[in-house]
Amino acid sequence: MKPVKVGICGLGTVGGGTFNVLMRNAEEIARRAGRKIIVEQIGTRHENPACDTTGIQITNDIFAVATNPEIDIVVELIGGYETARDLVLTAIANGKHVVTANKALIAVHGNEIFAAAQEKNVMVAFEASVAGGIPIIKAIREGLAANKINWLAGIINGTGNYIMSEMREKGRAFDDVLAEAQELGYAEADPTFDVEGIDAAHKLTILASIAYGVPLQFEKAYTEGISKITTEDVQYAEELGFRIKHLGLSRRTPQGIELRVHPTLIPQSTLLASVNGVMNAILVDGDAVGQTLYYGSGAGAEPTASAVVADIVDVVRTLTADRDNRVPHLAFQPGQLSELPMLPVDDVVTGYYLRLQAVERPGVLAHVTRILGEKGINIEAIIQKQTREAQVPVIMMTQRVAESTMNEAIREIEALPDILGEVVRIRVEHLAD
Amino acid sequence: MKPVKVGICGLGTVGGGTFNVLMRNAEEIARRAGRKIIVEQIGTRHENPACDTTGIQITNDIFAVATNPEIDIVVELIGGYETARDLVLTAIANGKHVVTANKALIAVHGNEIFAAAQEKNVMVAFEASVAGGIPIIKAIREGLAANKINWLAGIINGTGNYIMSEMREKGRAFDDVLAEAQELGYAEADPTFDVEGIDAAHKLTILASIAYGVPLQFEKAYTEGISKITTEDVQYAEELGFRIKHLGLSRRTPQGIELRVHPTLIPQSTLLASVNGVMNAILVDGDAVGQTLYYGSGAGAEPTASAVVADIVDVVRTLTADRDNRVPHLAFQPGQLSELPMLPVDDVVTGYYLRLQAVERPGVLAHVTRILGEKGINIEAIIQKQTREAQVPVIMMTQRVAESTMNEAIREIEALPDILGEVVRIRVEHLAD
Repeated sequence: MKPVKVGICGLGTVGGGTFNVLMRNAEEIARRAGRKIIVEQIGTRHENPACDTTGIQITNDIFAVATNPEIDIVVELIGGYETARDLVLTAIANGKHVVTANKALIAVHGNEIFAAAQEKNVMVAFEASVAGGIPIIKAIREGLAANKINWLAGIINGTGNYIMSEMREKGRAFDDVLAEAQELGYAEADPTFDVEGIDAAHKLTILASIAYGVPLQFEKAYTEGISKITTEDVQYAEELGFRIKHLGLSRRTPQGIELRVHPTLIPQSTLLASVNGVMNAILVDGDAVGQTLYYGSGAGAEPTASAVVADIVDVVRTLTADRDNRVPHLAFQPGQLSELPMLPVDDVVTGYYLRLQAVERPGVLAHVTRILGEKGINIEAIIQKQTREAQVPVIMMTQRVAESTMNEAIREIEALPDILGEVVRIRVEHLAD
Repeated sequence: MKPVKVGICGLGTVGGGTFNVLMRNAEEIARRAGRKIIVEQIGTRHENPACDTTGIQITNDIFAVATNPEIDIVVELIGGYETARDLVLTAIANGKHVVTANKALIAVHGNEIFAAAQEKNVMVAFEASVAGGIPIIKAIREGLAANKINWLAGIINGTGNYIMSEMREKGRAFDDVLAEAQELGYAEADPTFDVEGIDAAHKLTILASIAYGVPLQFEKAYTEGISKITTEDVQYAEELGFRIKHLGLSRRTPQGIELRVHPTLIPQSTLLASVNGVMNAILVDGDAVGQTLYYGSGAGAEPTASAVVADIVDVVRTLTADRDNRVPHLAFQPGQLSELPMLPVDDVVTGYYLRLQAVERPGVLAHVTRILGEKGINIEAIIQKQTREAQVPVIMMTQRVAESTMNEAIREIEALPDILGEVVRIRVEHLAD
């Protein structure tokens, strides 16, 4: 069969990795795809010293790639929102299929991009946008196509997981680990995207849409970062048989869909709790299959390239298929998306870990448990530390309750004269039902 | 689009699960597939009380399903070798696509079946044949299409993993756990297929073929069961920081492909070591992506049905695609399979755990280590237990060495006058490179 010609836009970490994998494994990939995949042109302003681009057309105008009549598939690896959006829409308008690793682009502009692609009868593939080399989009969109997905929970930001792992394993403070992660290149100079959960929320938005068949709604995601997690909380969680992970969580309820990124206590006995360092993993619960888990590198040049190139091969395979027989962008047919709303965080139902600082005086605990009891909040475990100080930390774990109810309880607890400062609150998920 | 009509052959555990999932999730599945999937006919000799088949055509002649001109896709869920082979070949000869969950059939007759399917331009899908509901075939064949797969290692028999987990967690003996597993229905009355590794070897054969693009060669697989593993060995392994799992392992070397199922010590720190009970997991190492792991239920009515139905949806999607653009049965194009041979077990290179029973006399250990040293076998760890008996157990872990070299060493060690009985030998894999 005729070779397929791709144009790569962006030759940074992922672009360079993609180019190198396509070159190094050209023969193996062609044996799978049934035809050669040729890099026809690269759009980049900077050479990548890791890449030998001898004999390849290079332009510093990425839009020249998007409009090049020789090119079948445009691979967008420049990152960012606006220029990437223009580039992808230009490629689509020119009848090109698109492969992208850009989670921000898909989470924020995906609905518009998919509509344009549908209109022009081309595909936009985005496996690399979530969890790097783990084929999680393919797994949910195709591998679990028989299932009603109930919920999913994922460690989908490597930087955050590296920080949480170091804090637990070595008892180090958040700021200390973050500074080191920045030195090692795991974290950006501005770490907000990673540690405040924005990057994870982009990915979670995409996962939820393909799991339940709803339009992308990044603006509805609740995000809470890990910068306020202390080594104390990490240790108390361990004492309770739990571990704190920065999770992206989405659950389908009859009322709507929960979409939330926050630090979460999960049982130590779960596989997800054993995912350490910069690795990613996603746990998916489907009504037929039960729980399945997918683990691997969530970032890096070649792991991400692995997903980009798999998408190129997938696009190549559907070149002769009827558009109606393709895997739909959001797993469900465009006219068949669900209108189930995203739930506000107030309506989220989850367990809670609470840490209070109390004056050591008889009856304090009774006041706190009375407030919880009045709101119907059941306590699963309490740790009260003996100390010689005048104040003691009290740690409680509660059963599942609506966030709004917990907020009311916390306000009342904080108003007690013997409770000092703010109540620390971390959500708890058993990942069991 | 026109609905697709499937015929289900076999209405046992998996057949019943498939029928129920297709019925219960019909609307969700149609929203994904873009058309309805209708069960046109069921071939079974026995009703399944879990299924409400009201209004469905039932025949006790499965071949009537395979030749029914109304049916597009024949779903083979009768199990076994010969009748299943005849049924599938009949369906293919009648121009039907086939979906099967039958690992024995694919491992033993797959090459013949795929050739027939190629000839008649139909697809044979077999995701459910390996690791139940885990979409591992899709992950390797499509999700990792960019990679040269280096090796894979899997817990792919739930019964065996349940037995190994119970032995470790509760210190129970093999026979005791097996008897209980039979009572619980986890193990068959004749447990040979599960505990001797034949079932795992069927699955491993399939995984290796799609990972490296080689024809199916079940007869070349080396299998060793878990029936000789003692609670002693389980405990010594833990002391060494390892855990014994019944693994299917396949590695590509320049000389050929290792294909082996045997008890294996793996580091406790690996995720695979934390996979307990009847769960399955497969770890895959690719040159671009690094390590990825896939975890879930490897058996059961609905987990297996999840894979069967996903295959049906996949087949539906390719109905309008050029045959040349389909995902090839063995991941690589039929004319592009590799001739890399399967290696005999003598050529396998791996670490070893050895347990010897020695007369407590000075110099015994020196004799043993001399023999190993002469063969270039390096020792990584030794445990020598203090005892009041006249004989002591000696446990050693060695670095990687060819099996034939280790066999010679063991023969010489067993010939030492102070070594009593046979040397217990269990292979070791670090799963790191």
